[in-house]
Order: sequence, then C-alpha cells, then structure tokens
Amino acid sequence: MNYQGQPQPTIGYDAERDQVWIIDQTRLPGEFVLCDLTDLEAAVRSIADMQVRGAPLIGATAAFGVALEMRRDPADAALAAAADLLVAARPTAVNLAWAVARMVEHLTPLAPAQRAAAALALGQEICREDEALCSAIGDYGLPLIQAIAERRPGPVNVLTHCNAGALATLDWGTATAPIYKAFDAGIDVHVWVDETRPRNQGAALTAWELGAHGVPHTVIVDNAGGHLMQRGLVDLCLVGTDRTVASGDVCNKIGTYLKALAADDNQIPFYVCAPSPSIDWDLSDGLSEIPIEQRDGSEIRWVPGVDRQGQAGEVDVVAAGSAVRNDAFDVTPARLVTGLITERGICSASRDGLAALFPDLARNAAAVSGATP
Amino acid sequence: MNYQGQPQPTIGYDAERDQVWIIDQTRLPGEFVLCDLTDLEAAVRSIADMQVRGAPLIGATAAFGVALEMRRDPADAALAAAADLLVAARPTAVNLAWAVARMVEHLTPLAPAQRAAAALALGQEICREDEALCSAIGDYGLPLIQAIAERRPGPVNVLTHCNAGALATLDWGTATAPIYKAFDAGIDVHVWVDETRPRNQGAALTAWELGAHGVPHTVIVDNAGGHLMQRGLVDLCLVGTDRTVASGDVCNKIGTYLKALAADDNQIPFYVCAPSPSIDWDLSDGLSEIPIEQRDGSEIRWVPGVDRQGQAGEVDVVAAGSAVRNDAFDVTPARLVTGLITERGICSASRDGLAALFPDLARNAAAVSGATP
Repeated sequence: MNYQGQPQPTIGYDAERDQVWIIDQTRLPGEFVLCDLTDLEAAVRSIADMQVRGAPLIGATAAFGVALEMRRDPADAALAAAADLLVAARPTAVNLAWAVARMVEHLTPLAPAQRAAAALALGQEICREDEALCSAIGDYGLPLIQAIAERRPGPVNVLTHCNAGALATLDWGTATAPIYKAFDAGIDVHVWVDETRPRNQGAALTAWELGAHGVPHTVIVDNAGGHLMQRGLVDLCLVGTDRTVASGDVCNKIGTYLKALAADDNQIPFYVCAPSPSIDWDLSDGLSEIPIEQRDGSEIRWVPGVDRQGQAGEVDVVAAGSAVRNDAFDVTPARLVTGLITERGICSASRDGLAALFPDLARNAAAVSGATP
Repeated sequence: MNYQGQPQPTIGYDAERDQVWIIDQTRLPGEFVLCDLTDLEAAVRSIADMQVRGAPLIGATAAFGVALEMRRDPADAALAAAADLLVAARPTAVNLAWAVARMVEHLTPLAPAQRAAAALALGQEICREDEALCSAIGDYGLPLIQAIAERRPGPVNVLTHCNAGALATLDWGTATAPIYKAFDAGIDVHVWVDETRPRNQGAALTAWELGAHGVPHTVIVDNAGGHLMQRGLVDLCLVGTDRTVASGDVCNKIGTYLKALAADDNQIPFYVCAPSPSIDWDLSDGLSEIPIEQRDGSEIRWVPGVDRQGQAGEVDVVAAGSAVRNDAFDVTPARLVTGLITERGICSASRDGLAALFPDLARNAAAVSGATP
C-alpha cells in the first residue's frame, strides 16, 4: 500500500531512531497518524485497544513487543511475563499466541545479553515473511483480474467484504493483494467496497487504504452486492478468511456467506484469499465445528464516525429497549467458493485441492489427528 | 399496532377537535410525537419531509391534504393546485398519485359546497380500505406461523427486512400483519429485524413498532440473516414489496434478494406480503423492466441516530474522498419466492397464481396491453 505516493507498511522498525512504530488504526479513516511503541506496555495497549488489528499485524506487533521488553530486561522472568501480557491482550487471536510462542522458543536458549538483538531481528523476519506471503497471494491472484481485463474493455469490477487489506497485515493484504498488483500493473480495476456492518471495516479501512494507494473504488451498503451482481456490475469477488477448514469451508466476517450465494446465483467467480496460517487442518466441517464468536451488541447499536463538526463521534441507531444480537463471523461452505488463493498458488476449496498445494502441512495434520492421509 | 396498550393508527381524523393528525416518524425511534396537519401545506410538508412514509400512508395523507384544502377553498382551481402540490411532494410514489387522482375524480362533479365533507369522508374511506387490506393479509399469513408453532415447542422465528410495518401503512403493516395477528392470538413469535442500511428502517422503525406492540424481537445487521438461517434460527421470512411484477418478481428494499437466496439455500419459506395495489400487471420481468432508483450517497455516508448526550445526531461513516453508490431497491426473482400473501389469499409467485386470485385485475391489464390473457 502506498500513502502519499510512498510505500507504507502498517508497522516497522526505524533503525535511525531505534523506534518501533505503527499506524494508529483507531484514528482512521479520519486521520493518518503514525505512533511509536516505546515499550512493552505500549505494544500491549496497541493490541488491546485495536490500534493494530488483523491477525498477521497483531502477531508482528506482539513480536516487537517482546523485543521492546528484552531491551529493558532480557531475563527469563521478564520474557515469560511479557509473553503472558501480550497473549492476554486479545485472547482469541491465533496469530498472536503463535508469534509470541515463536519468540519465546527462539529467545529462551539464548544468553540474555543476546536476546534484545535477536528479538528485534526475529520481529523483522516475521514482518518480512508476512509481506512475502501476501505478495505471493497477489501474484497468484493477479492473472484472474488480468484475464477479465483482456476479455473486454472497461474496468474490472472486484467486490470485497470487510478489510482483508494491507491494514490487516504488514502490507498488500490478502484479498486486496491481487487488486494492488493489478493496479500497479496498469490494469483498469475498480473495487466495490462493502460497508461491512458492524464495525464498518469496509467503509472505514478498506476504502481508506484503497484511496491512499489511488485505487478507484466505491463504497456500498452490505445489502447492495447481490443487486450489483444481478446487473453485471461485478466481475470477481475477492474476500479474506479468518479460518479456513481443511475441507475448504471458510469462516470470515459475517455477511461473506450472503455474497457467496449471490456470486453463485450469478455465475460470478468467488475467490477466498487464504494464506496457509489461516488453514485449520484439524477441522473438516466449518458449520458444525467452528464456534462463532458472539460479540457485544453495542457494536451494532453504536455506529462510530465523524460528526458534523468534524469530530469523532458515535450514534445509537437501534430503537431503545430492542434486543440486539451480534455474531461476528459466518461460514461459507466450500461448494460456494470458486477457489482458494494461497501463497503457493490457487486450488479448489477442497481437501484434495489444499493437500496438493500443502502436502507437508496436510500430512502433518493427518499424522497428528491419526486420520488416514 | 398498539402503543402503550392502545390501538394506534399512523394517521387519523379527530372529529371532536376537527383535526387530522399523524405520527411524526422523523422523531422515531427516539420520540413518539403526534402532530396535527392544520392545512394543505402541512400535509405536503409531512410527505416531502418523510414525517409520513410508506406507499399506503403517503396516499392517505395526500387524501387528507386535499380535504384540508377543500375546507379552506373548495373551488376547482384550488382543487387542481392542491393536487399538483401533493403529487410533486414525492414524485415517484405511485400510491400518492393514485390517491390524489381518486380524490379529484370524486370531488370534481360535486358542487363546491359539498366538497369539504365529501373529501374528508373519502379520506377516511381510503384509510379504512388500507387497514382492511393489511388485516386480510395478516389473516391469510397467520396460519403459516400457526403451523410452525404447532409443529414444535419454542418461539417461531420470523425474519423481516426493512419496514413493511404498521408505520408504512394505516395499521397492521403488510409483512408485519401476520406477526401482529399471531402475537395477538397468543402464539410465541419472535422477530429477527434486519437493520436495513441505508436509512435503517428496520433498526429504527420496525424495531420501534414491534416494541410498542410488545412483540419480542432482536435487531441484527443486514449481514447476519444468512448465518442465522444456516443455524436453524429462522423459521420463516416475511417481507414487503414496493412493486410486484405480474410474473411474481418482487422489487423491494435493497438486500431483500440476498435474504431470499439464503432462505432458498436453507429451505426456509420466503413469503412476500403483496397487497394488490403493489402489483404491476403490465410488467413481466422485474430485472429488465423495473428501473432502480439511485438515491443520494449522503444516505449511506451519514448515519442518523441518538448521540451520547441523548440528542438526535448523525455521523459520517465513509472514508473521506471515497465514492458511494446508493441503489434503493433490488429485484427478487419469482423462483426464490415461496408465495405471495395478498388480501385475497396466498398464491404462487407466478402469472397463473396471481391471475387465479385476481382474475378481474389480470384480465383488465391483459385487455389494456392487448396481450392474450
């Protein structure tokens, strides 16, 4: 993602100033503010308060959080305490626990004097890995957009839901990676951005980052995607995934399933951008096996934005006394998914498709679970 | 619809005070305010400013607007000018033009001295007709809910979209009529209320009126319906229609199509409550023949509600500089509609189904258009 014409990752280490910094995403889309993470507490707070969000970015932030603490106190006790603090900041974030465990595993055998430098290096390595992963997804997705552009004149219209964008990762995003690659290659691409209630990650974050990069886009309400597909105004759907079942079912932001149904009804390709860390090799049925987080109803009731005075504000949109239910995710069955775009290529949303691309991971999972491969 | 335990129509004539009054719907759900329409200008303003909305209610308000003017000046010129003013208040509202034309046709042959009383009487008659129509839809829809209640214990979960409720009509509503009838009959019924972006008629109006009547309900975002259907939490969908094609296609608030797809995918009955005035006998293909109104993007950008200080307010939810597109309606193909609930009974969403219930109307249309019946 570019901002004001320059590449802009979501987190980084500035060697000159010896500072770790992030984009404060709670200020978006109203304001673009970079802020330094001065110590472990700042890193924990940035995760808990959602200044950073998105699984890969949370993981990277946690890694840097460990590094910041090792600079202050590289002792075993400090390392263990930092790990506990970070993991507790967002208890359900899988990447967070994974990144922290990786840091601890890497640092524990080292002499305390070596830990600060090693932690910083591994934090940067985790960032590079995620960027490479997203970039590869972009490279594999790009030909899908290219093929549509070559078939007919006019912009290629891509619909996306939520923010599986650069802001959720280190850069590129997952669902947005093919879009950025296409735009950078000079392809005429236009994005329909679902508002994505509740939390409005589409209208607030995806729209912001596409705008920052210069990608033409239009925000629509979550109700509109099916209508646009009926009218031939959508060529391709690209969405992310919070958890991909080994059989190809996809758990993503609530509403993804409705868009997949509409794409299916209108013969529009519906691709899920699924980096391998999102794949849960132990599950085989998304609907029965994935517990769906029910979040607080205040996320639906209170809509944040910018008021008429240009200040951050929020309004209650639900009749007083009415109950509210807030399911965070839904499951899109594999039968509605045209394909999974992974960092190793595109495969069918199926056990065979995934196993062919990831024989190493699929085999390990089968061995662990005791199933036949 | 009841309010504080008493029947509460949306418009009426108070003979004691000799006043026409409405519920000021722009104040809902925050405040319940009745206000008098003192003259034609007040009636026009109430329509233009959406103090009243919903096709039948707009029609009734226009009829009373004519009556108010006839009281001031019953001359031909005043009648013609009143008709023009009212029709221009919401140019696309079919019922508005229909009600005004009916008033003019009825009043023109009368002596000016008779017009004020005759206009008031016809205004009240139009109200009674609409109430009877909605009540009949409720009576025909009630057995669908009853049958589910008898099949198993627990509440019957009905999902609805937008506000095809009492507030859009004189009373009962269309989609809500079977729900009110079921609730009044002591059936354990619970309603999933789609928020219905933009304009939020679900979260603001449907939730308010169900709450006022005492019907258990829960507000969900527009993204959630498919997920709830997958989980067996929806027994029946009931929605309204802005325009019903003679072949059974249904044009309704944007997002209706997505819910119909999900109902179809989960074998959940999806009924459209379609009073005969909504049927356009001249059309046979909703997708190609119904022009879809594109409304101003500010309806998406600015979300109204109640701020933290309890005041009416609004916030901008879209990233600055991003384009916005606002299609007001979508078309649900007849193949996704389980049945149409009309004031004469339930029929299949098809030309044959509708013609069997409305041979008089279908035949007239065929004769007018020159088609074979």
